[in-house]
Amino acid sequence: MFMQAGFALVETGFCRRKNATHVIMTNFMIYGIGIIGFFLVGYALMFGGVGHIANLGGTPPLTKEATVGGWGLFGYRGFGLTGTYDVGVMAHFLFNLVFMDTTATIVTGAMAERWKFSAFIVYGFFVSMIIYPVFGNWAWGGGWLAQLGAKASMGHGYVDFAGSGVVHAVGGFVGLAGAIVLGPRLGKYNKDGTPNTFPAYNMPLAILGTFILAFGWFGFNPGSTLAATDLRIAVVAVNTMLASAGGAVCAMWWSWREKKLGKPDPGMSANGMLAGLVAITAPSGFVAPWAALLIGAIAGVLVVESIGFFERKAKVDDPVGAISVHGINGLWGLIALGLFADGTYGAGWNGVDGTVKGLLYGDVGQLVAQLIGCVVIVAWAGGIGYLFFKVQDRIQGIRSKPEDELAGLDLPEMGVLAYPDLEEIEREPVLIPEVVG
Amino acid sequence: MFMQAGFALVETGFCRRKNATHVIMTNFMIYGIGIIGFFLVGYALMFGGVGHIANLGGTPPLTKEATVGGWGLFGYRGFGLTGTYDVGVMAHFLFNLVFMDTTATIVTGAMAERWKFSAFIVYGFFVSMIIYPVFGNWAWGGGWLAQLGAKASMGHGYVDFAGSGVVHAVGGFVGLAGAIVLGPRLGKYNKDGTPNTFPAYNMPLAILGTFILAFGWFGFNPGSTLAATDLRIAVVAVNTMLASAGGAVCAMWWSWREKKLGKPDPGMSANGMLAGLVAITAPSGFVAPWAALLIGAIAGVLVVESIGFFERKAKVDDPVGAISVHGINGLWGLIALGLFADGTYGAGWNGVDGTVKGLLYGDVGQLVAQLIGCVVIVAWAGGIGYLFFKVQDRIQGIRSKPEDELAGLDLPEMGVLAYPDLEEIEREPVLIPEVVG
Amino acid sequence: MFMQAGFALVETGFCRRKNATHVIMTNFMIYGIGIIGFFLVGYALMFGGVGHIANLGGTPPLTKEATVGGWGLFGYRGFGLTGTYDVGVMAHFLFNLVFMDTTATIVTGAMAERWKFSAFIVYGFFVSMIIYPVFGNWAWGGGWLAQLGAKASMGHGYVDFAGSGVVHAVGGFVGLAGAIVLGPRLGKYNKDGTPNTFPAYNMPLAILGTFILAFGWFGFNPGSTLAATDLRIAVVAVNTMLASAGGAVCAMWWSWREKKLGKPDPGMSANGMLAGLVAITAPSGFVAPWAALLIGAIAGVLVVESIGFFERKAKVDDPVGAISVHGINGLWGLIALGLFADGTYGAGWNGVDGTVKGLLYGDVGQLVAQLIGCVVIVAWAGGIGYLFFKVQDRIQGIRSKPEDELAGLDLPEMGVLAYPDLEEIEREPVLIPEVVG
Repeated sequence: MFMQAGFALVETGFCRRKNATHVIMTNFMIYGIGIIGFFLVGYALMFGGVGHIANLGGTPPLTKEATVGGWGLFGYRGFGLTGTYDVGVMAHFLFNLVFMDTTATIVTGAMAERWKFSAFIVYGFFVSMIIYPVFGNWAWGGGWLAQLGAKASMGHGYVDFAGSGVVHAVGGFVGLAGAIVLGPRLGKYNKDGTPNTFPAYNMPLAILGTFILAFGWFGFNPGSTLAATDLRIAVVAVNTMLASAGGAVCAMWWSWREKKLGKPDPGMSANGMLAGLVAITAPSGFVAPWAALLIGAIAGVLVVESIGFFERKAKVDDPVGAISVHGINGLWGLIALGLFADGTYGAGWNGVDGTVKGLLYGDVGQLVAQLIGCVVIVAWAGGIGYLFFKVQDRIQGIRSKPEDELAGLDLPEMGVLAYPDLEEIEREPVLIPEVVG
Repeated sequence: MFMQAGFALVETGFCRRKNATHVIMTNFMIYGIGIIGFFLVGYALMFGGVGHIANLGGTPPLTKEATVGGWGLFGYRGFGLTGTYDVGVMAHFLFNLVFMDTTATIVTGAMAERWKFSAFIVYGFFVSMIIYPVFGNWAWGGGWLAQLGAKASMGHGYVDFAGSGVVHAVGGFVGLAGAIVLGPRLGKYNKDGTPNTFPAYNMPLAILGTFILAFGWFGFNPGSTLAATDLRIAVVAVNTMLASAGGAVCAMWWSWREKKLGKPDPGMSANGMLAGLVAITAPSGFVAPWAALLIGAIAGVLVVESIGFFERKAKVDDPVGAISVHGINGLWGLIALGLFADGTYGAGWNGVDGTVKGLLYGDVGQLVAQLIGCVVIVAWAGGIGYLFFKVQDRIQGIRSKPEDELAGLDLPEMGVLAYPDLEEIEREPVLIPEVVG
Repeated sequence: MFMQAGFALVETGFCRRKNATHVIMTNFMIYGIGIIGFFLVGYALMFGGVGHIANLGGTPPLTKEATVGGWGLFGYRGFGLTGTYDVGVMAHFLFNLVFMDTTATIVTGAMAERWKFSAFIVYGFFVSMIIYPVFGNWAWGGGWLAQLGAKASMGHGYVDFAGSGVVHAVGGFVGLAGAIVLGPRLGKYNKDGTPNTFPAYNMPLAILGTFILAFGWFGFNPGSTLAATDLRIAVVAVNTMLASAGGAVCAMWWSWREKKLGKPDPGMSANGMLAGLVAITAPSGFVAPWAALLIGAIAGVLVVESIGFFERKAKVDDPVGAISVHGINGLWGLIALGLFADGTYGAGWNGVDGTVKGLLYGDVGQLVAQLIGCVVIVAWAGGIGYLFFKVQDRIQGIRSKPEDELAGLDLPEMGVLAYPDLEEIEREPVLIPEVVG
């Protein structure tokens, strides 16, 4: 839950000062809006028809056999947590609420600095009620992706320990859709298509946010073992730490080497750590420490290349690198599980039965299931996200006014400045010549 | 305990830059001063005569039958934790220490930007040794408020799960007393009585602080169940989260609507989340999730109205809204328990026996007990606080010098500036005309 | 682990704005570099030959009888955590990783604002692979210091509960060596040898960092009891809190008194809290609460005096006071255990058998063992640190270029500014006269 604060700082620090209140307010309000949306609707769609949550502390499931579709497309019981006071269900709700809010927050980074606040609020309810819970049902709520193994002849279900796919890749691809529909910030691209850099206005804030996120991840990944009552928690924590280190060090090294200036890049180093954390989120409970370090290291290189690709080739303006960190590395995490899972753990986890083995340990089927998951995420999160933002743009308009964007969104949309004293200072030099004249 | 950091940031961010070091130092030092005061004196007054803490892990109480007065006005054993090495008592001390420090910190917000630092230090010892522990004894230490049920013919004791009253309302009303005795900041009110707005100098800092507080509350509220060895913790956590969401979203909506400008108010949204958290603190272990959301939502509206009332009608200058957030919503939390408690839980908690039912579930007696508690808080915290500050003002003087207040308290009272570089920048424009001339 | 964020903020806040990104990047990257170094090499040297970690949850030790030297100079099994998937070992690794990273971070404070970043990276690997693990082996890994009691005729082993010596004093003395080899920052000393003050550029950030560190210490100290499966955790937590309060309040009082200006010193108060926390780290599991308060209070005075000594007498430039906070008070913590340990606890902890009693409880031998530890730390950390930095300076050069140091290291070494907007503001006044002219 503390991760929300981390996201808020990373996104705010990487943006421009004139939008600081606007950016942090989207991160702040998504917390409240998301809680309400998930409580009223999302949780029921995601878990309302499943027996799997029975794993949780031995308590009975919220409801039974209440899904739409044979394998399960979504559930339809438990809206507003009515009819239950069960402690196990409450804990399960809480844990999944935090996961949902992470997904919702990721998108605010990719769409920062030009998103109309009232449009953001509508998005907040849609993501917490529909986008996240439906895919979440397929992967974690006993839906068709999880049952590929049990019911399909292919024998393998999609496995995603703590949400490289469900949480991060979904958020990243909804963000990609939003960034495309919004278009780049004014002034981001020159007429010849070359991008301009808008430097982070507060680098220490962004790095503090990265620290907080890294810390929060130790609730996120190891905490996921609680749902399965096993002792894997220390292994997961070590893997998480090693991947974060690999990501930070390799992104620093890769950006240093790439720029050929003899300088590391602080922003890339921070994004590298986050990329390593995202990538290890799916496989953290299934791989050996050396593999975790390697997965993180590859994520560190991947995030640098991906940010360059989206900025320079695809010309998608993503102010904080959220698409690359969460979207691309979320997919990498799913694939990494299909490569490096060593079969030590598996049974009893979130509907996974039998051991989970990757390609390196002789099982190609798991990799195939993971790749199916990747395709579904890109199609669902990217597709429904694009559709939603397009329709919303037609009805309500989702982009701030150009004059507000140029002036900074804080005063026109929020009514306050982030640092009123500093703005006064900035205005003074403009006034002085008049006084002197 | 991490909540101290949250309070420090919220209060500092909402104040003016020229006082930033002074504000954060009061928040920082209250931690150290409060620990020493509560260790030496406060804990003995609060819990020195009770058997109730025997609930805590089966360990024997600190001391027995050592209270002043028949029902118990305060205890008198255990000063300086002498004579015991008991692990259960140590844990109990630690937990209550954190609660006390929260109360003490709240007051620094209401009195910020014009409080003499040496006067603050004397206050720090007084609140941790006397004001907090005495009311704490009545409510949680087996004193007369808790025993209304057992010993009075009325059959109901005052119930306050994690301190809407004991912690927050007490802090809020001591703050109200202090703000009245200090008077408003210079320049706050015009001659015609209309207030001026001093905008928050660092809104991202204030919102980061709100996040930290929300996170800390999950130690505060669910942690309170540890004292009763029950499984309610997940229910409490869900209720806490829903109330915080209701508070933030409703305060945003209410301020948006009120200002009629099509703009949400970031400061009000943050205070709304805190108000929701304060209000759910007393009833969090006794109400259903839907009620928690409603309690938070009402708190969000209440805090906006209350801040407007104190600023515009009562003309009490409370720089960060502490009186409304903690005082008014603390009382609302106590009353909410008397309305919405559904009887699911009750027995075995901090001296509460039998079920706890509110008016909606047919029991008017509990509401009466809660209202008695509210009256006692306003009388004790407001009364003793007013008396203390008045006497201290006569003897020592509690307000900073006007010239220091205008210049900012950082240099005259702390000897350093919060951001020395920025102050240099600000001075430069003044110098330039001379250079040019 | 969250302590890394605390160190990052304290060090960044206490330095100058022009180096903010550089300072926070050393704190950020040491995390990643340290994890990799300790995983590949450090853990094996430190614990690779010990049976003591068998205490940890009943799991078998990583390896047995694999040390160099009769009593144990260092281990040589378990590089890269190969050959094990044991949950107990994983948890043990994780915990010790965090301790190591703390030591490594301390040094970045003492050497801030003039350290070449590429030289820092080499240091990062050396400290995590060699300096920390070797002393760690002697003290905690079953090495010769721990076995003074069992194998030497003196009957007492060196005892260090959570690392006043192993973690803090080692970091402080490596930092002292580095600060001496680097020399003072340009402009720190006048020709007559009097020091100039470079004020903290962001005092609220430094105090927020102190809060985060204090919070993190509650994972650090009480968490250390996990390794011994005992109930001491609440006692340790109370002692930690009391010492932090004693340190903050006494340092404030001592600096207030010393300056004779009627002003407390915020920086000294923050360092006083940290000094109290460092000093209680070794004895926290072995002393009574009153002693903890006293140990912290003495630490608060000691840190003020020590910072004055290094700045004015020894002329060692330590921008954040790391040598005094961690080095000097680390030694004080070791000695304090030899004075105040009351014999209540002892057996079963990290290789300590029998009770641990200090001089006040009649046992001079423990104090002698602690003093031997102090001498070894100064010799090993100071000596190997000095040698390392001297050799590295000869080969690679460890100091930034003077022109970069004067301009601020952010742009030349990191390629970005911490606050680009503010730098633009600062430049503007210079440009205006030209425009006007």
